[in-house]
Amino acid sequence: MSITTDICIIGAGPVGLFAVFEAGLLKMRCHLIDALPQVGGQLSEIYPKKPIYDIPGFPEIKAQELVDNLMKQIEPFKPTFTLGEKVSGLEKHDVGFTVTTTDATEVQCKVVVIAGGLGCFEPRKPELANLERFEGRGVTYMVKDPEHFRAKKLVIAGGGDSALDWTIHLADIAEEITLIHRNETFRGAPDSAEKVFELARQQRVKLMLSTNLQSLNGNGVLKSVVYEDKNKNTGEIEADFLIPLYGLSPKLGPIADWNLNLDKNAIVVNTFDYSTSVDGIFAIGDINTYPGKLKLILSGFHEAALMAQSAFKFVYPDQKLSFKYTTVNGVNAF
Amino acid sequence: MSITTDICIIGAGPVGLFAVFEAGLLKMRCHLIDALPQVGGQLSEIYPKKPIYDIPGFPEIKAQELVDNLMKQIEPFKPTFTLGEKVSGLEKHDVGFTVTTTDATEVQCKVVVIAGGLGCFEPRKPELANLERFEGRGVTYMVKDPEHFRAKKLVIAGGGDSALDWTIHLADIAEEITLIHRNETFRGAPDSAEKVFELARQQRVKLMLSTNLQSLNGNGVLKSVVYEDKNKNTGEIEADFLIPLYGLSPKLGPIADWNLNLDKNAIVVNTFDYSTSVDGIFAIGDINTYPGKLKLILSGFHEAALMAQSAFKFVYPDQKLSFKYTTVNGVNAF
Repeated sequence: MSITTDICIIGAGPVGLFAVFEAGLLKMRCHLIDALPQVGGQLSEIYPKKPIYDIPGFPEIKAQELVDNLMKQIEPFKPTFTLGEKVSGLEKHDVGFTVTTTDATEVQCKVVVIAGGLGCFEPRKPELANLERFEGRGVTYMVKDPEHFRAKKLVIAGGGDSALDWTIHLADIAEEITLIHRNETFRGAPDSAEKVFELARQQRVKLMLSTNLQSLNGNGVLKSVVYEDKNKNTGEIEADFLIPLYGLSPKLGPIADWNLNLDKNAIVVNTFDYSTSVDGIFAIGDINTYPGKLKLILSGFHEAALMAQSAFKFVYPDQKLSFKYTTVNGVNAF
Repeated sequence: MSITTDICIIGAGPVGLFAVFEAGLLKMRCHLIDALPQVGGQLSEIYPKKPIYDIPGFPEIKAQELVDNLMKQIEPFKPTFTLGEKVSGLEKHDVGFTVTTTDATEVQCKVVVIAGGLGCFEPRKPELANLERFEGRGVTYMVKDPEHFRAKKLVIAGGGDSALDWTIHLADIAEEITLIHRNETFRGAPDSAEKVFELARQQRVKLMLSTNLQSLNGNGVLKSVVYEDKNKNTGEIEADFLIPLYGLSPKLGPIADWNLNLDKNAIVVNTFDYSTSVDGIFAIGDINTYPGKLKLILSGFHEAALMAQSAFKFVYPDQKLSFKYTTVNGVNAF
């Protein structure tokens, strides 16, 4: 399938979506590609029902609600989407680019905007012999809907913020929670760790420190988790679910081979227009880096706005940009 | 009156308000000063009922509603306010500052954040002998509530976007509108001008080009406006209201004397933390300038977030900043 557009946006998370709005105000059309089967990025994939508190103007908003609002906001600009496909290649032409996906979709565009968040991130997994057999059958790496775990027996593994926060959150929902961590201390926020210790004192959470996962038992679905404590004693915990929360391993994927100036896993941009070291390629949101960078959605929104001004020169090289505020006239749909 | 706080924010518009949130996440307290008698800046003062379309996550929101939401969002951080007073002085100490107002309020603080929007802006006024006599008695420089003009006879004067946009908007509301402009062509957006010409063709607006205001008549309240056309002929238009929309004249006021690096009427900042040329003074929102600057509320939100990181070093010089996302734990109120 071949698509022609002004701007190809890689990543349909909140920042990629809002970029459609800023591009649309300047009469540029956008096509978005995302490896996930739905728009919204991490917000929809990892924590759709979790409230977010730091979106300006929303004292509280559920992640999926923000995504839904953004979809409505960009609707006048008729973005098109290729979802559930990974970007595999990029070819630079004298004018514009061709972006290709693993499923052979081809996007011809004048500008490429990388809004890939953490990239094609994957959960870090524990090393257990029979792990794969139980994935989706009791072993899960994300808490999409806390209600899924109501009145269930859970083993959560990990020592960072995710493990602590979900232990606290699910304590009221699950029948039983055991938190297993290989060290004596937690990497997560001290006040979260304090809350978990308090839950353990109240016997609402079973805490097993200096303990490692050893193996999984079950017949088709998970039945129990075998652990080994610091004295090398093993034991077995009955469990409907094992939730290893060892963090996400960000992967830039093929973007790492596009000759962009990188700093660790992030794309180096300037703060004038969030352009990369390659002319016509911009990077906005969590995937970029610059002095002072904060990985905040609200920063990605700002980056999208400044990016659009500069992208205009690639899409309409002969036109003068007259920047107009939307306050009075509203939005002119395509 | 003397107030002691961590951060003194000059300007209680949307960006100044959101700065309270970002400061609050880092446990810094804020006091805000604004010359206007209420919070919200331009949004509340000039167009409270106008919809805004470019706040991310809001397909449409009325200006005052955004202000109300922001007030709710910062409520946990208990900001304090001095409203209806103009900042008059600034004194820099070895540590911190004293900010004073025209009404002798004194704010002792560690950091000053200037979020003054267009500054103490004032409407540009026509030169008419008896203008002042009719101000507030038929002559008004702002359209706060379009309903105020329902079924009234209006004379709008000006040729920029404000004059065009309000002519279009009020055409359905007023009994009669005459738009007077001293030139033959408009400075405002071509499509708005086109709409006004169309309204004139439909006789829904009376258009008087190359025409100047000459004087005002009335007995206590405005009754009519006298004009002079290009052939030096004068005439009189019956009017309940004259709305001169010649734009706002931004005034930095005493801030201009604070030895900050300025570019025209804007304060030059860097994009690392939106700090000014004076240590401990930051400038965010429409009042600052840097390469790529767009005067967007959403950009001010981003600037507030990065500013807060750097302000932390002034408020807590001995503490290490551990930046925490609000996604999971929410907001810890003061």
